Amino acid sequence: MHLEEKLPQLVNAIEDGLKGYLSAVDFGHSAELGRMLRYHMGWEDGLGGGKRLRPALTLLCAGACGGEVAAAMPAALGVEFVHNFTLIHDDIQDGSPMRHGRPTVWTRWGVAQAVNAGDALFSIAQLALLELRQTCSEAVALWAAREMNQVCLRLIRGQYLDMAFEGDDEVALETYLAMIEGKTAGLIAFCTAVGGMAAGAAAETVTRLGDFGRHLGMAFQIQDDYLGIWGDPAVTGKSAASDLLARKKSLPVLFGLRESADFRALWGVEQPTQAQIDDMADQLAACGAAEYVRQQAETFTQQAFADLERLFPRPNADAQALGALTENLVHRQV
Amino acid sequence: MHLEEKLPQLVNAIEDGLKGYLSAVDFGHSAELGRMLRYHMGWEDGLGGGKRLRPALTLLCAGACGGEVAAAMPAALGVEFVHNFTLIHDDIQDGSPMRHGRPTVWTRWGVAQAVNAGDALFSIAQLALLELRQTCSEAVALWAAREMNQVCLRLIRGQYLDMAFEGDDEVALETYLAMIEGKTAGLIAFCTAVGGMAAGAAAETVTRLGDFGRHLGMAFQIQDDYLGIWGDPAVTGKSAASDLLARKKSLPVLFGLRESADFRALWGVEQPTQAQIDDMADQLAACGAAEYVRQQAETFTQQAFADLERLFPRPNADAQALGALTENLVHRQV
Repeated sequence: MHLEEKLPQLVNAIEDGLKGYLSAVDFGHSAELGRMLRYHMGWEDGLGGGKRLRPALTLLCAGACGGEVAAAMPAALGVEFVHNFTLIHDDIQDGSPMRHGRPTVWTRWGVAQAVNAGDALFSIAQLALLELRQTCSEAVALWAAREMNQVCLRLIRGQYLDMAFEGDDEVALETYLAMIEGKTAGLIAFCTAVGGMAAGAAAETVTRLGDFGRHLGMAFQIQDDYLGIWGDPAVTGKSAASDLLARKKSLPVLFGLRESADFRALWGVEQPTQAQIDDMADQLAACGAAEYVRQQAETFTQQAFADLERLFPRPNADAQALGALTENLVHRQV
Repeated sequence: MHLEEKLPQLVNAIEDGLKGYLSAVDFGHSAELGRMLRYHMGWEDGLGGGKRLRPALTLLCAGACGGEVAAAMPAALGVEFVHNFTLIHDDIQDGSPMRHGRPTVWTRWGVAQAVNAGDALFSIAQLALLELRQTCSEAVALWAAREMNQVCLRLIRGQYLDMAFEGDDEVALETYLAMIEGKTAGLIAFCTAVGGMAAGAAAETVTRLGDFGRHLGMAFQIQDDYLGIWGDPAVTGKSAASDLLARKKSLPVLFGLRESADFRALWGVEQPTQAQIDDMADQLAACGAAEYVRQQAETFTQQAFADLERLFPRPNADAQALGALTENLVHRQV
């Protein structure tokens, strides 16, 4: 089965699982809290709530190791709930008014209730994940719970750094890469590793699946940084060089601040015009930032593919789908 | 050994455990995040960070069931970290500027970083608790992790209600009692139950320990509501009728709003004078609110003592200390 057929099936199963799990949670007198979570997950208005890539990776990794979807499903639900807990809190922290085409939870219910809703989803994620004790074993559930909380702690460390960077004039490229490793790649590494674990894979395989996820996550995030400046507005649906407009200290910007006096001067302009934004993007390309970022993404992409080849020298259908999904993610234009 | 000797020893052991656990957490490039947590826990300025009553209850319950302090310590650390995670987020939600005589985390580092610091402490609490796998067994660790997250979810539901009450003109007494059961008594019930679990107590004993903790928690919170209005300012260190000043919809206020037209009229006054506040407290007492609240606290207190008697008909030193601590908590004046 090709990825174009496989992925929608998986995503449907994940969506059903997420809805089923959340609808079984007892919200008692606090029904509105449940509604906030369903709203964030995208089930109140038909607009949807995200691509569910993380749990899809978990299920594909489980399948690639010869495991069953049902055994890995608690892990898939756990990682997607965790991801969404971080999004609810991220939106508060960034002051983001919109996500997936609708007002964010804090915009609609206020900061205090949004903090609380995120906390609820974090607890729900833990409970969902711990159901691995039923579909796999107590040992797998415990391993997953410890690993996920360690990953969350690294993610939260990364979030600390990301916010601290805003007030920081000089951020070393290495520190930035450490930040995105914690904030993005770590959770994706957990998604892939826990899939293998749920399939009963050997420790060595689980470790390499984690490496694959980490490399994929780095490539994914760096590609995101690239598209934030050089993505085609017609394809991304965002304005040209949207990350420059938002003054986001992404990888190309940090490279430009280090390498180009012209870019530094433009970056210092408060409320730049669109012409100045375009100029900034050109200066970045001229000083080698685009090339540097592309190369970084490519390096991690190659590592991810090398991981896959070593993991699955004779790939089954799920391992093939995993390769195709990796290809889509790292070479996407949106 | 009497409680006056036993409790400080326990609290010292807990404090050492908390410090040791947090100092072993790797904060990487985010050392300041670690500092935020140590500051909140009360270790940066010598002012202290709370009475550590919850973990003390855990350890005393473990000891009362014949268990070892060391076996129950991961649970004690877990509950105290969870409690403090909720405090960091509570302070944001309530807009509280001060706690334990120092500016709250959000006052000092801003809302965004404080949300993140609370999230970090939640993950750390999970990790601390899961170490029961080493001191007890995998089964106990899994039980504790599931139970704690279910308790957290009820706590978060209670927090939702508490915030929703602010804009709600009529809150039924039963709904309020359900709210404090979720927000306060549930976590204390977990503290006592997990102590028994760590000591290898029978399922029936663990259930009854939970009942004891729930009754104690209800009595504790209702006594808190009583002291918030009729506590002696010279003893509590707060202004007279401080909860009326803060317009907190506590149990006596809800009783008064239901029973007394005079109180309702006074409650409607915006920015009341101290004389009006005193008048409100008198009206509340006159309509029977003080008596009602005292009786509610007494009912739960008697249930807690009855639980203890049935649990420990021949109490050892720890069970005796548990009784003395219960006595102190429910009949405290501060």
